[in-house]
Amino acid sequence: MSASPSGSHGSRTGVWLIGARGSVATTVVAGCAAVTAGLHPPTGMVTETPDFADTGLPALSSLVFGGHDTVDCPLPKRAEALADGGVLPPGLPSAVGAELAAADREIRPGGPLPGDTRDEDELIAAFAADITDFVRRSGADRAVVVNVASTEPAPTGRTLPASSLYAAAALRAGCPYVNFTPSTGLHHPELAARAAAAGLPYAGRDGKTGQTLLRSVLGPMFAQRALTVRAWSGTNLLGGGDGAALADPAAAAAKNAGKERVLADTLGAPVEGEVHIDDVPALGDWKTAWDHIAFDGFLGARMFLQTTWQGCDSALAAPLVLDLARLAARAQERGLSGPLSELGFYFKDPVGDGPSSLAGQYAELLRFAERLRDGADGRGAQR
Amino acid sequence: MSASPSGSHGSRTGVWLIGARGSVATTVVAGCAAVTAGLHPPTGMVTETPDFADTGLPALSSLVFGGHDTVDCPLPKRAEALADGGVLPPGLPSAVGAELAAADREIRPGGPLPGDTRDEDELIAAFAADITDFVRRSGADRAVVVNVASTEPAPTGRTLPASSLYAAAALRAGCPYVNFTPSTGLHHPELAARAAAAGLPYAGRDGKTGQTLLRSVLGPMFAQRALTVRAWSGTNLLGGGDGAALADPAAAAAKNAGKERVLADTLGAPVEGEVHIDDVPALGDWKTAWDHIAFDGFLGARMFLQTTWQGCDSALAAPLVLDLARLAARAQERGLSGPLSELGFYFKDPVGDGPSSLAGQYAELLRFAERLRDGADGRGAQR
Amino acid sequence: MSASPSGSHGSRTGVWLIGARGSVATTVVAGCAAVTAGLHPPTGMVTETPDFADTGLPALSSLVFGGHDTVDCPLPKRAEALADGGVLPPGLPSAVGAELAAADREIRPGGPLPGDTRDEDELIAAFAADITDFVRRSGADRAVVVNVASTEPAPTGRTLPASSLYAAAALRAGCPYVNFTPSTGLHHPELAARAAAAGLPYAGRDGKTGQTLLRSVLGPMFAQRALTVRAWSGTNLLGGGDGAALADPAAAAAKNAGKERVLADTLGAPVEGEVHIDDVPALGDWKTAWDHIAFDGFLGARMFLQTTWQGCDSALAAPLVLDLARLAARAQERGLSGPLSELGFYFKDPVGDGPSSLAGQYAELLRFAERLRDGADGRGAQR
Amino acid sequence: MSASPSGSHGSRTGVWLIGARGSVATTVVAGCAAVTAGLHPPTGMVTETPDFADTGLPALSSLVFGGHDTVDCPLPKRAEALADGGVLPPGLPSAVGAELAAADREIRPGGPLPGDTRDEDELIAAFAADITDFVRRSGADRAVVVNVASTEPAPTGRTLPASSLYAAAALRAGCPYVNFTPSTGLHHPELAARAAAAGLPYAGRDGKTGQTLLRSVLGPMFAQRALTVRAWSGTNLLGGGDGAALADPAAAAAKNAGKERVLADTLGAPVEGEVHIDDVPALGDWKTAWDHIAFDGFLGARMFLQTTWQGCDSALAAPLVLDLARLAARAQERGLSGPLSELGFYFKDPVGDGPSSLAGQYAELLRFAERLRDGADGRGAQR
Repeated sequence: MSASPSGSHGSRTGVWLIGARGSVATTVVAGCAAVTAGLHPPTGMVTETPDFADTGLPALSSLVFGGHDTVDCPLPKRAEALADGGVLPPGLPSAVGAELAAADREIRPGGPLPGDTRDEDELIAAFAADITDFVRRSGADRAVVVNVASTEPAPTGRTLPASSLYAAAALRAGCPYVNFTPSTGLHHPELAARAAAAGLPYAGRDGKTGQTLLRSVLGPMFAQRALTVRAWSGTNLLGGGDGAALADPAAAAAKNAGKERVLADTLGAPVEGEVHIDDVPALGDWKTAWDHIAFDGFLGARMFLQTTWQGCDSALAAPLVLDLARLAARAQERGLSGPLSELGFYFKDPVGDGPSSLAGQYAELLRFAERLRDGADGRGAQR
Repeated sequence: MSASPSGSHGSRTGVWLIGARGSVATTVVAGCAAVTAGLHPPTGMVTETPDFADTGLPALSSLVFGGHDTVDCPLPKRAEALADGGVLPPGLPSAVGAELAAADREIRPGGPLPGDTRDEDELIAAFAADITDFVRRSGADRAVVVNVASTEPAPTGRTLPASSLYAAAALRAGCPYVNFTPSTGLHHPELAARAAAAGLPYAGRDGKTGQTLLRSVLGPMFAQRALTVRAWSGTNLLGGGDGAALADPAAAAAKNAGKERVLADTLGAPVEGEVHIDDVPALGDWKTAWDHIAFDGFLGARMFLQTTWQGCDSALAAPLVLDLARLAARAQERGLSGPLSELGFYFKDPVGDGPSSLAGQYAELLRFAERLRDGADGRGAQR
Repeated sequence: MSASPSGSHGSRTGVWLIGARGSVATTVVAGCAAVTAGLHPPTGMVTETPDFADTGLPALSSLVFGGHDTVDCPLPKRAEALADGGVLPPGLPSAVGAELAAADREIRPGGPLPGDTRDEDELIAAFAADITDFVRRSGADRAVVVNVASTEPAPTGRTLPASSLYAAAALRAGCPYVNFTPSTGLHHPELAARAAAAGLPYAGRDGKTGQTLLRSVLGPMFAQRALTVRAWSGTNLLGGGDGAALADPAAAAAKNAGKERVLADTLGAPVEGEVHIDDVPALGDWKTAWDHIAFDGFLGARMFLQTTWQGCDSALAAPLVLDLARLAARAQERGLSGPLSELGFYFKDPVGDGPSSLAGQYAELLRFAERLRDGADGRGAQR
Repeated sequence: MSASPSGSHGSRTGVWLIGARGSVATTVVAGCAAVTAGLHPPTGMVTETPDFADTGLPALSSLVFGGHDTVDCPLPKRAEALADGGVLPPGLPSAVGAELAAADREIRPGGPLPGDTRDEDELIAAFAADITDFVRRSGADRAVVVNVASTEPAPTGRTLPASSLYAAAALRAGCPYVNFTPSTGLHHPELAARAAAAGLPYAGRDGKTGQTLLRSVLGPMFAQRALTVRAWSGTNLLGGGDGAALADPAAAAAKNAGKERVLADTLGAPVEGEVHIDDVPALGDWKTAWDHIAFDGFLGARMFLQTTWQGCDSALAAPLVLDLARLAARAQERGLSGPLSELGFYFKDPVGDGPSSLAGQYAELLRFAERLRDGADGRGAQR
């Protein structure tokens, strides 16, 4: 299953996490350390499978972490809370305490907080300076900025939401950018020209970790078998910060748009049915997603498929975040720029054009690995 | 969704069904008539999707049906029973009564029945004669033999089971052969040489209509995401003749082997977990399949996926049987012979080599359509 | 299972249905005729079980039907549509065509419709006159008014909603009243004094047919086992008129209040979790309800129960409506008046005080049967 | 929820566990200590609810533990393993390490082991001596013997199985006996006379912790609503020792008999459908039970209920074992003897006669609490 890709020894790669004290970020930092130390296999990391051997990805041991957040809770303490909730294995927070503390020292205050008098450009400049300081201080060749913060409401008007301020800061700091959330990030009209001019690779939007992952394989199944889906309904129950954020209808709207797009794309047309996201604090970081699919078979026979997915969101997201940081870093090293549409495998609402079935997206990802591997011949850089 | 392929007008293609009075066969005959008459869309028939336009498949309206069975119930009466059980729409049996009666007249007694004194070769000869008589009398260009009979116990010893007698008869009559069941059919050592010498295309084994269809998309999902499946357990509840047949452990063993092979192939290794098949007469032709998958995510997080599939087996199988009869007929017309490994999309335990993921199998099927389409250049015939 | 109670031969009992052309009402009329004719067993009718023998209930064969509705579709045609949707057995509409037509002739226009210039009192008087005409014309000893119309939005202000106009008409006509819906009906402050003065028995509110029925047995199970329910979430998918009506948040609010009350009452305290009602037209009259219950066991072990209920709402409601009409008619005959709290078994939000567990409510119902039985000794009439 | 019953201060009550090193026993000992210390609420313990206040039950703090087992693993180590598997909270094994060690010192070797040359009577005498030594040494007023060992195969012939040897030892030692497993225990013809003569209270058989608990509330629901259950099918997935033991068909047969009896008793007749018990080591002590119920409603409408129960068997069983030990001890103190049929609430296959619905059994249990409470008047002792 696992094959350690040949990393550039001695060099370092920064991973700058927006929402650096959240569940996903904490799991990313703790998990990278745990896998590097051999405490756990790299389950869930596609970049550790044999297909990614010799693709020049930065080694896990070469990754250094920092980021922005608006809360104060130290990473080691956050990790303990996650272990109490069953998200991290008991004992892991202390086993990787040094790495958590090291990342914690590289977390800078995010914003804007209430009362902040800085204007958009000042905020972007401050955030960009935080990132470039981190790169310089850590001796990294480069850093990838990854948004793993709570979903923000869909923006109204021309004001840049926080996620877009951070994205703009990534551009200004010369960093590849990955948006693992449904928040706006680089998808703001005010940033389009800057993104195009920056010559940087970027990827997103909204990591595909559970219900939508399933939909991206089940939708194609119905389509390929010429079965008529009549209604596809879903309910998500989740606690943690994400549950509370998505209980806000405006935030949920952003997320659901991605889910419905996957169905419409794989089935060939929009389909009846709603998606609910309920905040159920009792579930903590564990998410339960129920899908009910009513479909017609031959001669109008009424049939049903139901799925129940019970997963830990942070544990599902973290290995993908590590994958994406490595892929985006290597993409920049290889001279690629613009939307990395080949990474649709990871997202509900991928940038660029690409297939919507998981199988098609996986094939694209393997082709992307080939491009990364062909480092010496310069072909990949002609993009 | 639907695109009527250009059939060879005026010509006829025979479909000879082993188990011609069963639920699947009855649904095949009634459904073909209903779709031809425009009473229902061709839901579930992959060969009616645009990708199969201009591939030279025989038109649905050109298909004529006959077959073997050991029971007497006339097809129109069988169809009424299926309508009472909700398998066929109310009103359909009378709407297609003429076609059901026509097929009924072409059904010959199967065997061997208790007390039958004919030896294997006599039985094969008799069955082959029934088929060639049908082809001649119906004026068909050819006939495809499709096994849709109840699953028989796994054979022991060198005696040919009934399914193999019919398969041998198909070879002797010069007909392409499709085994939609897990029964032995052509997979008998005694028939290997005959199959190789016959120069006929054949396909099988065991139609993939429900739980295994799902497994063939979910297995690859776990593999592609590098998630570790720890156990995959399943229970099938079904009534009808199939439920009773598969309650026999020997018959179930044949079926389960196919299901487990799909998992092992898509996941890369065998996985813990059992499959049960329960005969629940109360369910009639409706099947409920529950799957429970325990998998590990990052850092060993324990997660679960459950699926419940509620389908009508006959309605799921019938359009695939029509697909296969058309594809096999066209394959023979194009001069193809031997195992049609490109039809793995349809089977739990496909002949020949091919991918085990549904997506890979669908891609193979589309390539096969291309081969059928290239009628003029002779490439396809070089097989 | 079934024991035909001794009905008062020769006499007739009227059942006046508000929403007389809806799915439930049509199923009530067709089903009563079908059971009377011996075409079907009285599945789902509690009053046909041995515990209700000799309780003096009106015989099913003595029931005559009429009602109000604002739509025109004739009952026989509505029944055909229900048979097409699988709610009624194929063939039943024609088998009981005479009874459907007879009831259809006794349906009067409901209201108020847009443009109606009658004031509240005129409407009540007109509705009451329709009912008394029906009783007189049909020669019934009495009629019970049962509301089975689509759920209306929760009322605002002092204006009487339609359901309350009908309820007031029942009082004026001297009829027992049963509210099988969550609509206001008699629960309007303007009607409190009239209800108290009328000396009539009444029951309601909101028939307990699926998800809430389950909750009324599962809630007590958790409570009796001292297990701590941490969250109870639910999603209902339903088509038909009810799905559309309940997709209106105001209507759903009325319904959900009843569901949540059952949980709070059986568990001893309100519990976290939402209930969704989705309109899924593809499901027709069939309803799917998923419940997810997170509970804690000993030492805080996190456990889960999920239930999926797939039922036909009309088929679940109709036998209960027949039960209630018979029980209310007999209650009036026995001189009972006021809220029939012993009928909590049937309702989400019962009138009066009573146990909230189904088992407790069933025990109450059996005691009520005893009271009805004791016709000769006058005890029951002392209420 | 919780009300600490008044225990007899200063006195001690012994709990002698057969299978004292298993998951259930370890959870019993650790959990009793944890609740006594105030580390956890007594979730799942019915005897800690207000209805059991002042019933004279021994206080949790007065319980002392010992038992027999054939394996060596020390309890503190076993508890650590359970914490690693998520059965016990992390940190609990060390927090109650002293109590675990104390119980561990009171565990004696069980048997018979291979090569043991003692005959039945010698074994019984040795086991009884172990128990009386424990009572004497611990200064307990009495001890209750509770069988929580792995399920043994159904016995054949007159030889006493191990569970019956322990039960006979309990009789000889003058101890109340509780059989929480489906093993034979006191239900052996050779022991009938001894049990009758012993003048001791006893209870059993086979704790009702998951699927059967559900069935004992859902079965009555269908019966009370006059709905016709057509098939009730179930699959249990479980790892741990119990999964392996029950994968033995002979052991499973004993267990399934209890499950089916609950259905037949609550529904009024046996019902179609099988129960599977699969050993899925990946699940550890967690059990998943899926039930599929096909039922008919009015006019033959086909409906379905599915339930999925995900629980931790040890956490479900342990509080019930503590309940039973306390109840049986108090019963002996009150002079009760013979089968405690009022404890059917706890068992799949209860001794004596009693209701089969959980609600009925709960009412019996509350009446039993009354009998225990009436300590002074002697009524309870007249049994």
